[in-house]
Amino acid sequence: MSKSRLEAFSDGVFAVAITLLVLDLKVPAPGGRHSLGHELAHMWPNYLALAISFITIGIIWINHHAMIARLREPDHMILTLNLLLLLSVVVLPFATSLFAEYLREGRGQSLASAVYSGAFTVMAILFYALNRHILVVKPHLLARDIPYARRRQILTRGFTGVIPYVLATALAFVSPYITLGITSALALFYALPIASGSERSEA
Amino acid sequence: MSKSRLEAFSDGVFAVAITLLVLDLKVPAPGGRHSLGHELAHMWPNYLALAISFITIGIIWINHHAMIARLREPDHMILTLNLLLLLSVVVLPFATSLFAEYLREGRGQSLASAVYSGAFTVMAILFYALNRHILVVKPHLLARDIPYARRRQILTRGFTGVIPYVLATALAFVSPYITLGITSALALFYALPIASGSERSEA
Amino acid sequence: MSKSRLEAFSDGVFAVAITLLVLDLKVPAPGGRHSLGHELAHMWPNYLALAISFITIGIIWINHHAMIARLREPDHMILTLNLLLLLSVVVLPFATSLFAEYLREGRGQSLASAVYSGAFTVMAILFYALNRHILVVKPHLLARDIPYARRRQILTRGFTGVIPYVLATALAFVSPYITLGITSALALFYALPIASGSERSEA
Amino acid sequence: MSKSRLEAFSDGVFAVAITLLVLDLKVPAPGGRHSLGHELAHMWPNYLALAISFITIGIIWINHHAMIARLREPDHMILTLNLLLLLSVVVLPFATSLFAEYLREGRGQSLASAVYSGAFTVMAILFYALNRHILVVKPHLLARDIPYARRRQILTRGFTGVIPYVLATALAFVSPYITLGITSALALFYALPIASGSERSEA
Repeated sequence: MSKSRLEAFSDGVFAVAITLLVLDLKVPAPGGRHSLGHELAHMWPNYLALAISFITIGIIWINHHAMIARLREPDHMILTLNLLLLLSVVVLPFATSLFAEYLREGRGQSLASAVYSGAFTVMAILFYALNRHILVVKPHLLARDIPYARRRQILTRGFTGVIPYVLATALAFVSPYITLGITSALALFYALPIASGSERSEA
Repeated sequence: MSKSRLEAFSDGVFAVAITLLVLDLKVPAPGGRHSLGHELAHMWPNYLALAISFITIGIIWINHHAMIARLREPDHMILTLNLLLLLSVVVLPFATSLFAEYLREGRGQSLASAVYSGAFTVMAILFYALNRHILVVKPHLLARDIPYARRRQILTRGFTGVIPYVLATALAFVSPYITLGITSALALFYALPIASGSERSEA
Repeated sequence: MSKSRLEAFSDGVFAVAITLLVLDLKVPAPGGRHSLGHELAHMWPNYLALAISFITIGIIWINHHAMIARLREPDHMILTLNLLLLLSVVVLPFATSLFAEYLREGRGQSLASAVYSGAFTVMAILFYALNRHILVVKPHLLARDIPYARRRQILTRGFTGVIPYVLATALAFVSPYITLGITSALALFYALPIASGSERSEA
Repeated sequence: MSKSRLEAFSDGVFAVAITLLVLDLKVPAPGGRHSLGHELAHMWPNYLALAISFITIGIIWINHHAMIARLREPDHMILTLNLLLLLSVVVLPFATSLFAEYLREGRGQSLASAVYSGAFTVMAILFYALNRHILVVKPHLLARDIPYARRRQILTRGFTGVIPYVLATALAFVSPYITLGITSALALFYALPIASGSERSEA
């Protein structure tokens, strides 16, 4: 398996999953009781959830590229972990819809929010596992030698990136708006130039 | 981040978004009150909106290619702006459906049209911002030197391209058919050989 | 605009459009009046239309590749014609659904069938126009010199390929099953080794 | 037809088909009789079927890559067989939805399960046919010489891979849970490191 086809397939899945997020925006039926302006304004959780998921998948895609760029060639375990990572990406449009649909409901809002940030948590953990396999378990598969201290540093940062998603998942049961706040803040943080360069590209 | 993977991912998102436009065409249920001919004819705003959006996304894709071709390598800001640009592309199937569905309604037609050309406006502004970052803020990231006058010229043309979309958005509140007229005219203009060569490829 | 990115984008649109055909297969709701076997058997027009469209798009994709392989670099007109060709591909999932849904209806079946083969006709004409532009209007854009006689031969074959689709469209008003017969026969003919090698790759 | 564009198109179809699997996960309507937790738990066949199909398509994609890597250039028959293989991949989201929807129904569950593993069977047979054409019928199309014994070995393994899917299809009429068990076990087996290296990559 060449690296380039692994990248092409992964890029394809990322691109399709990120675009399918738009299917969550449904055109309000004309002739309803409320004005279109009211209906569109009412859909704000959908816009927000779409933006958060879009940016988060985009960041993971950037980080995925940095990870694969370090690799010389994939082994079986890398292909399998990558497949599981892509599976976690593919379910995000569903988790995003669920979150947007239930955020303001009186019932189910906590569970929906926990599923949403839970999906991000699983994605971040699989990303960490894949990175760990490449950097620590099979360093001979690296494209070029990276000092051990640097490899640990990348992994530690990756592990640190999982924590806020775990928190967002646990605190969903206090209020779904905490989940909304944490996941938005993370998307903003990673998108802003503050977290620039290598900092962000391996978070 | 290599340029080639940035292109591959962007191409993927453009290709998926442009193809998802077809989901807006719904097969009329058999056995309705009207003939199929009547029903299909009644869907003309959907065909028109599909064609306008398809060609506009296609033009932006062509321009995106010209922009990235000038680049040697992306920095963090370019990745972020590109991600936001793709986000504005991804919402177009929704904006297109909204426009087609409400064009002939007595209520909501102006807002729907403003959202439609508003989405194009946002896309054009993000495109301009990305181009500006590459050409003026970080010219050292260019693949080869471009004279300052030429860079300003490309940007001015890009800025000029935003204006008709702003107009189409504002005039939507006079009549949605003005929005339809302007956006169709722009798609036609860019597709026709009149706007050929570098003229079009940096509009 | 480099050829490779034109190919990448076109491949993306072809791949997405061909895969969206599956959305036409709807799972029958459990607990209906008929058995699942009955319901699935009843969907045979959907399977057939899916197979015909899938193979026809696949053939056009193969031919598209042969056409672009002859090209050195695209000009503005090629980009525009290619965009229109892709637009005709993108509407095929809709035309396919329409055809499958109405084939056995007492009303609208002829129009639906005419739209189906009409969509193939438009695609074939745009393919011909694009090929003609490359081979006759702008032969200096060819990757390597092709004798005039050979270029005319390719075009004549392309033109001949349009005729059966025009027939299938006209005869839809006699019976939709003629359209079904002609479009199936063409898909089979192009897929079978009879039409092998250069014969098929430029049909 | 160059190998690289064959790969790019196939990768595109694999990536879109694998991502469309998520459309089978439908957000439960808020305000229902049951709690969201209950509703989400009730959807377990959907999660399981999604995971099985995702991993199975992923494995076929990996194997597809190994197969095409051995090839120097495709002939007409390879293009046709590859198109049919992709067609069998494209219908998997439908077969997966059907299976998940009917697994626990009192009526139709056996047929739905047989269709599900039947779709995998067809995919595996087409994969075998394509591999056989490359390895035995047209070995002069191989990128480099492979000893006859090795080629037979690859094919035998491919043929062996078809058998459990045939079994899962036949035994669907005993119980759909047997189909579920066999298809899950196969996905797990191929994903686990047990079936590593060349073993798996040509299964």
